[in-house]
Amino acid sequence: MNIGFIGLGIMGRPMAGHLLTAGHRLAVLNRGSHPAEFAERGALVCGSAREIAEQSDVIISMVPDTPDVEAVLFGAAGVAEGLSAGKLVVDMSSIDPIATRNFAERIRALGCDYVDAPVSGGEVGARAASLTIMCGGEPEVFARARPLFELMGKYITHVGGVGDGQVAKVANQIVVALNIEAVAEAMVFAAKAGANPGKVREALLGGFASSRVLEVHGERMIKRTFEPGFRIGLHQKDLNLALSSARALGIALPNTATTQQLFSACVAMGGKAWDHSGLVKALEALAACEVGG
Amino acid sequence: MNIGFIGLGIMGRPMAGHLLTAGHRLAVLNRGSHPAEFAERGALVCGSAREIAEQSDVIISMVPDTPDVEAVLFGAAGVAEGLSAGKLVVDMSSIDPIATRNFAERIRALGCDYVDAPVSGGEVGARAASLTIMCGGEPEVFARARPLFELMGKYITHVGGVGDGQVAKVANQIVVALNIEAVAEAMVFAAKAGANPGKVREALLGGFASSRVLEVHGERMIKRTFEPGFRIGLHQKDLNLALSSARALGIALPNTATTQQLFSACVAMGGKAWDHSGLVKALEALAACEVGG
Repeated sequence: MNIGFIGLGIMGRPMAGHLLTAGHRLAVLNRGSHPAEFAERGALVCGSAREIAEQSDVIISMVPDTPDVEAVLFGAAGVAEGLSAGKLVVDMSSIDPIATRNFAERIRALGCDYVDAPVSGGEVGARAASLTIMCGGEPEVFARARPLFELMGKYITHVGGVGDGQVAKVANQIVVALNIEAVAEAMVFAAKAGANPGKVREALLGGFASSRVLEVHGERMIKRTFEPGFRIGLHQKDLNLALSSARALGIALPNTATTQQLFSACVAMGGKAWDHSGLVKALEALAACEVGG
Repeated sequence: MNIGFIGLGIMGRPMAGHLLTAGHRLAVLNRGSHPAEFAERGALVCGSAREIAEQSDVIISMVPDTPDVEAVLFGAAGVAEGLSAGKLVVDMSSIDPIATRNFAERIRALGCDYVDAPVSGGEVGARAASLTIMCGGEPEVFARARPLFELMGKYITHVGGVGDGQVAKVANQIVVALNIEAVAEAMVFAAKAGANPGKVREALLGGFASSRVLEVHGERMIKRTFEPGFRIGLHQKDLNLALSSARALGIALPNTATTQQLFSACVAMGGKAWDHSGLVKALEALAACEVGG
């Protein structure tokens, strides 16, 4: 299949690589990272997103934020200018669900299909093709995109209509952040109450407190390994998105708001590039203690 | 072995039953629930906690709160009055870690041993003898109590010195409450953003957001099954304990404090006896929506 891939960053580069390895013909942009590497492997290098759209049946975007997706799709020499009826746009970026529904509307007006398919699993998941992919779109459109998702991910869910993939991703980032904050509160409590946080974590793994975050991020807090992983700066962006969407929808998310403030405290302490388990340092600063070591 | 068991409530009754089934001789109080049932099975029925302590090598308490343990151990005709050197006191109630260290000190001054061993797993775990048991005490004292724990629980951890079992239990209740709150925020967000919360939950189960709470309590929120399980009123007591201990220790637990307020909102709505997954109703009230159904 002819696939255009826009956004060859930390995530996009290995994802696009899997598509190429599977024998698809890839079109990429002549700027940003690594076009030469892809050209060497036979990819078509294009001068604009419009040209990529002209040359491709499916156009995948994997860029940082909502305005980036808007610029790629609808900016000057953007994807929309190169589309013709029947093509498929797949946005795998993590962006605003409400804006996503608007983008999908405008793409459909051109006779094309749209799927939002944000991912979770980070660079490790992208390299191992083991990403969790949360998809929103019409069932037949999802079915059309699914074989491509299977080359990049392992746990693929069709959540619902357009935008619902992004809703699930926001929900995912809320739960992960708040579970990290929960473990951080428990570990700081344990340390300050004179217990060994590592043994407390062990005692908790068997019961209802158990979670992937208690396993993975709890261990990082105790071993003091705060190399990402997933950067606090990025998770902060995701919680911003959650809170601005919540405001638009009329929802109170009290612990998301507090947790966002704790991420801000970490950034103030120089921790924008810490792994998100470094959130514990904000609570440690408030309690003048350190968990584990 | 001669075992005294004080507190034959929802949890204590099946726990004491397992000890009897295993062939131990049990001494119980002649008041509260079910003394006749235990007498029929051969238990010795005593008139006071002092008499129980006189008749037993190991005295187990399983009562609601810190003042109850203090009354049982040190009140008039209490356990302390009936102890002689070499006996073992095992408190399996969920109470204040700091008070626990004081109680242990006073019991040791009588030449006896003390282990705190609060449990998690609820009535179902108590009946199935599959409780998680978090233990604090000297290694040799823990070793002495362990065979009894193995008759009541499955996942038994020696966390550390006296009081550390209670620290782990508080940490457990913090994590469970905050994980429930996290899932509730995510489900309310999903519902209000127009997605199907059940599908969103499904999408999240594969990744870093996965937890026992997402599995069990997330499902209850969607299916609207709020029969306990574990009552909001009890979890509120546990978070009160966490917050008062935190105040004494000089720690900020911001999301525990907010979550405690949301439990209070549920109680105001008549939900003291709801399962703790009913926390979602407080967030639904704030957003004028309902998750799933």
